[in-house]
Amino acid sequence: MSPADSISFARGAPSADIIDLDGLKEAAARAFEDDPAGTTAYGTAIGYVPLREWIAEKHGVEASQVIVTNGSMQADAFLFDALVQPGDAVIVERPTYDRTLLGLRERGADIVPVDLQSDGLDVEALAELLDGGLRPKLAHVIPNFQNPAGYTLSRAKRDRLLELAREYDFVVFEDDPYVELRFAGQTLPTMLSLDTDGHVVYASSFSKTVCPGIRVGYLVGPPELIARIVRMATNTYISPNMVAQSIVNQFVRSGRIQSSIETVKAALQERSGRLAEALRRELPDARFVPTEGGYFMWVDLPEDVDVDAVFTAAGERGVAIVKGSDFLLEGGQHSMRLAYSGVTPEQIDEGVQRLADAVRAVRGVAQTTA
Amino acid sequence: MSPADSISFARGAPSADIIDLDGLKEAAARAFEDDPAGTTAYGTAIGYVPLREWIAEKHGVEASQVIVTNGSMQADAFLFDALVQPGDAVIVERPTYDRTLLGLRERGADIVPVDLQSDGLDVEALAELLDGGLRPKLAHVIPNFQNPAGYTLSRAKRDRLLELAREYDFVVFEDDPYVELRFAGQTLPTMLSLDTDGHVVYASSFSKTVCPGIRVGYLVGPPELIARIVRMATNTYISPNMVAQSIVNQFVRSGRIQSSIETVKAALQERSGRLAEALRRELPDARFVPTEGGYFMWVDLPEDVDVDAVFTAAGERGVAIVKGSDFLLEGGQHSMRLAYSGVTPEQIDEGVQRLADAVRAVRGVAQTTA
Repeated sequence: MSPADSISFARGAPSADIIDLDGLKEAAARAFEDDPAGTTAYGTAIGYVPLREWIAEKHGVEASQVIVTNGSMQADAFLFDALVQPGDAVIVERPTYDRTLLGLRERGADIVPVDLQSDGLDVEALAELLDGGLRPKLAHVIPNFQNPAGYTLSRAKRDRLLELAREYDFVVFEDDPYVELRFAGQTLPTMLSLDTDGHVVYASSFSKTVCPGIRVGYLVGPPELIARIVRMATNTYISPNMVAQSIVNQFVRSGRIQSSIETVKAALQERSGRLAEALRRELPDARFVPTEGGYFMWVDLPEDVDVDAVFTAAGERGVAIVKGSDFLLEGGQHSMRLAYSGVTPEQIDEGVQRLADAVRAVRGVAQTTA
Repeated sequence: MSPADSISFARGAPSADIIDLDGLKEAAARAFEDDPAGTTAYGTAIGYVPLREWIAEKHGVEASQVIVTNGSMQADAFLFDALVQPGDAVIVERPTYDRTLLGLRERGADIVPVDLQSDGLDVEALAELLDGGLRPKLAHVIPNFQNPAGYTLSRAKRDRLLELAREYDFVVFEDDPYVELRFAGQTLPTMLSLDTDGHVVYASSFSKTVCPGIRVGYLVGPPELIARIVRMATNTYISPNMVAQSIVNQFVRSGRIQSSIETVKAALQERSGRLAEALRRELPDARFVPTEGGYFMWVDLPEDVDVDAVFTAAGERGVAIVKGSDFLLEGGQHSMRLAYSGVTPEQIDEGVQRLADAVRAVRGVAQTTA
């Protein structure tokens, strides 16, 4: 690999080599053959009916609790439009997905960040805020292999968060696109499945298990809320993409999705391990928690290393990272998010070498100017 | 056909038999083969790049003037969000597409309907309003085979409308999904192509030429406005459906779209003619203008016939229509929209017979109670 080749630890997306192209081609052919009318006609805003039913069955809910959308970010936008008024308090994890922060900020939400620990949201800090009088409308949580941190919410904390949601009557927005990508450790139950009284709205997507370009996501929630969102979706686009949803339906019902997930998980496990090794070798004073799934690793650099400078120095060396500060309303100056989903093992080794070189250059300058 | 079979003159969509399924299957296979990465990865909110370029070339504009969206209604929603503030005056045709009215009403627009004549918007009535001080932000016009009326804006009126837009500095929103479906008469230039100074935003779609379930539409406009809408789209869904747009790209670039359009036009011409004949035979006092393209025919019933009653009586006979009043803020009590796009010639004959029976029943009751 020539030093001129750029290496991106920035993009949270799978590399092309782990997409099941043959499976997609077959699924597309079958979509047009098996259900020509349903695939090609306008549908309705609930989504492609057989896929909606498959999702309902997977989560053990009624079909009326599901809306299938053009990607899960569109689902998030509808949910925020339905539930969040300007001034409403919304709990987010600190750090969290930058587009979630943006979506909430655009709607005038009072964003209340609560620390994320390596076993998930600091639920006792949340309990204290609630005890102190905070009355949030919504708590946004990415429970598995969080973006950007890669951490997972423990079982005990899932129970506690639900308990708080019931006691203080807020909605837990369980944003779970990475759930299928666990390559180590124990799978935990969704809060949706633990919920007994409609305090959870669940979102997920086929971007990580089929492919991102297919743009199929979904929401699961109480039937009345889903019905409201269906009306909003009707007024926005009549119906989501029926061709894409019919292709996904063929892909999941043929079982092809299982081998696709296995391929993706095997690659992610290798890449995650390779990244951890390279970091230990090249950046021994960086701190991180090895991941059990998903795309991302959160890396804390020593306090004397400013990530803005590292970002620039890495860019000069053809390496893209995302600064920790992008995922926080304030702070994150010594942290970065490394996505290992879109890079090969060889790129990881080379990329971390260059990154370490960038950190050394930044520290050298800092020591010279100090 | 048994009387129990329902016949829909309500749905503005093509029947399944005129969709090019083989062409779609081939295009899907080629999309995954020829550009696996571009088809399956996240794109950006501008849309699938090769399709965007094809559209730009078709309209003789720069690619930076085009955004490809999840259906053109999503494009309308972005445009309204970008341009229409509560209280802004917006010109619409009277009658016009019900979802346009709804979208404008939701955004608090001051909706100003201007009569639609059989050669399009009454531009002189608009000129009088402008002369009287009206300062609209936008004029929404469906120039070809209008929904619901089926009428087309004449060449002279296109020029006059552009002249007014320049003089009074408003945007003409040229909403043109039916343009390719002309089966008789002369094709007229788009106002986009006649515009010299950025007073036109143009929208169209592949719903009528490929299939509705593919949900691919687009906007063409001034680069700054398109850039603003691209940012809105990024924040809503990251990227539109790349798989669907890549399939459309294959479909249009292989030339397959031409034969698809020919098939659709031949069917529409036959259906339109058959509908006109059946109406003359079965409902001789109904008034309508024979269409030269598109999906819809607007039918005025005699003044003693209330369309609410006809709607119910037709429904009892298994025939669906849309009431004229659905396309107007007020009035339309004696008119209906008949869509001939989704019905076979045999269904048209049978459906108009039943409709005539419904009208007779309604008139009988009216005469009895008079």
